[in-house]
Formats: sequence, structure tokens, C-alpha cells
Amino acid sequence: MKLLQERIQRDGTVKEGNVLKVDSFLNHQMDVKLFAKMGEEWKRLFAGQDINKILTIEASGIGIACVAASCFDVDVVFAKKSQSLNIDGDVYSTKVESFTHQRVYDVIVSKKFLGKDDRVLIIDDFLANGCAVLGLIDLVESAGAALVGVGIAVEKGFQSGGRLIRERGIHLESLAIVDEMNCETGEIKFREQ
Amino acid sequence: MKLLQERIQRDGTVKEGNVLKVDSFLNHQMDVKLFAKMGEEWKRLFAGQDINKILTIEASGIGIACVAASCFDVDVVFAKKSQSLNIDGDVYSTKVESFTHQRVYDVIVSKKFLGKDDRVLIIDDFLANGCAVLGLIDLVESAGAALVGVGIAVEKGFQSGGRLIRERGIHLESLAIVDEMNCETGEIKFREQ
Repeated sequence: MKLLQERIQRDGTVKEGNVLKVDSFLNHQMDVKLFAKMGEEWKRLFAGQDINKILTIEASGIGIACVAASCFDVDVVFAKKSQSLNIDGDVYSTKVESFTHQRVYDVIVSKKFLGKDDRVLIIDDFLANGCAVLGLIDLVESAGAALVGVGIAVEKGFQSGGRLIRERGIHLESLAIVDEMNCETGEIKFREQ
Repeated sequence: MKLLQERIQRDGTVKEGNVLKVDSFLNHQMDVKLFAKMGEEWKRLFAGQDINKILTIEASGIGIACVAASCFDVDVVFAKKSQSLNIDGDVYSTKVESFTHQRVYDVIVSKKFLGKDDRVLIIDDFLANGCAVLGLIDLVESAGAALVGVGIAVEKGFQSGGRLIRERGIHLESLAIVDEMNCETGEIKFREQ
């Protein structure tokens, strides 16, 4: 998606340790007009797929998922990163390792909100090693729901997550795939799509 | 807001310990069409206030804030609940006690995204004792930004948060205020607004 690539080129910064900071428009400050255009693009890419629910994971996926869901006219469910006292015991759960926070989270979703009648699109802001998305896929499978596909804003094409998901035959649409980035020059190279 | 009150009556459940569960449409599964109507209502209630930014706190505030921000045509910034490796050191921070999770969080926002030129509307899903919103107000004040007001989906009118905020002369608009609820009968009484 040209618009997102241009925005990453303009406002993204490359930091040491393979960190791409896009916090001025994607995952701390959030440009909801951009999110609406991303939602329209996913709507086009997953046209005719009969999606009735969008699944994401807290926290930074929620804003993108909710604005995109307005395009699809469906509800969002977000998976939670630890057991809250406000969640009933009746949950699907999986474990997700976060490299950003250097810990393993229990990730849960209530059985009330994900089931075998659901046709689910997973949405998240970033795909790197794929841990979060693979966890969400695990939740969809535990619920017996149908996984229609995965929509990602920014994929780090030089990490393994995208390959792992595509190898499973899952329809993955990343709106921008970064194939190379250089923290010294600040250069970012995108995959042709 | 009649529509939200009716939805709480229909789909909310009262649990022991003053818990009002609205997780089927507000803060786990999320009805984004309802969020858009809530955003329009806040737009009406804060008309002419020259808001340029919406501030919320992860996780369950983000979806409502992002959909509402589409009505206001402004960016959202969400405060984060603990220092992430992906956040620069240059942050405003405060402490927020969560009764749901029974712990105290460091809550931070990057200095890049909140400053003295900002006119901020705070949005959150729940107001009970007010800890989260008072923390967000503290961040706005630390940044030297102007606080235009606070928009809440569901206020528990029998807890002290709403009073604390109104006593400070802050323009608070809660779309539904629960004055009484009974976990045995399931009855929920709303304040006339």
C-alpha cells in the first residue's frame, strides 16, 4: 500500500536492534484517517470472503482493528494479555512471547466471543517473528472458528513470521513489507507487491 | 445516551463486587457501530471546543477512542501501562492503581505526542474510582496541554471518580451513569441526564 510505505519512509525511524519506530502514526500516536484507508485496502484484498469478526491482540492492534472493522461492518474481539478478574473462567488461552517486552504472556479470549460459526480476519500492527499472530491463529483454531486470513500493517520481511504464516497456506496481506532497513543511514527498502 | 443505556440493560450483567460486565459489546468484544454513535454524541456534547487530540489509556479505551476520533477528525494518543523497550526515555509518567488487576502501573506517554499546543479530550470506557482518568489528567498537565474535557462511556455513579473530576471543574460527559445495580436481581438504574 503506497500510502503506508510513503508514511513509513517519511515518519518512521530505524533504531538499533532491528527496531522500526512508527509510533508517531501507528502504535502510540495513531492517525485514524490512515487507519480508515488501511481498512478500505484490507476490505478490497479480502473481498468476497464473508468475514463476520475481526480478532486482534491488545494493545496496539486494537485501534487499527476497530477502525478497519467499521469498513467491514463487523465486531472486533481483542485477545487479552493476562487473566483479569473481570474475565470469566471460560476462555481459550495460548502463550505468546513478546520480544519487545522480553516476556511470555498468557493470551486469552472468552469462549462467548469466538466460536465455530465465526469467520475471522486477524488484524495486527506488526508482524516480525510472528509470535502474536501465531497465538491468535491458535485461539481461532481452539474455538473451531474459520480463519479467513491475516491483515498486517507492517511486516518485517527479513524476520520469519511472514514465511511461517504463508507456509501454512494462510491468506496473509501485509500492507507494507520492509525487506531491509539500516539504522545508520535510516534507509528502508520495501518489497515490491 | 439512550442507545447505550438500552444496550447496557439488554447485554450487561451485574456481578458480585460491584462489577458491571459489558464485555459483549464494549471492552472485549467491541461493537464499532455503537462506538461511532458514541463518538457522534461526544462530538455534539463537546461542540465548538477546538479539540486537536484524543488521549486514552490501553487497552480497552483504545477502540472507543479511535472510532470516536474519526468523528472529531483528530489523532489519538494512548498512554501505555509500562515502560516498553520501544519507547524513548523522553516520556511523561504517572502512576495508576488498577482495582481490576490489583496492582499499580506506571503509565507513560511520549513527550513527542503531548505538548503545550494540544487541546485534549480524554476518552475512556469506564469511570469508577477515577484512578485511570486522574492519571491521564496528570499527564495532560505535565505536558502543559489544555484539557478540554473527559468523555466516558459508562460511569459508576456510586463510586467517587465522577465527583472527584467534576469538583475540579472539568467538563465530564459520561454517556451512561449507573447509580445503582444489584447483582442478585440484575437490576441497573441509570441517572437521569
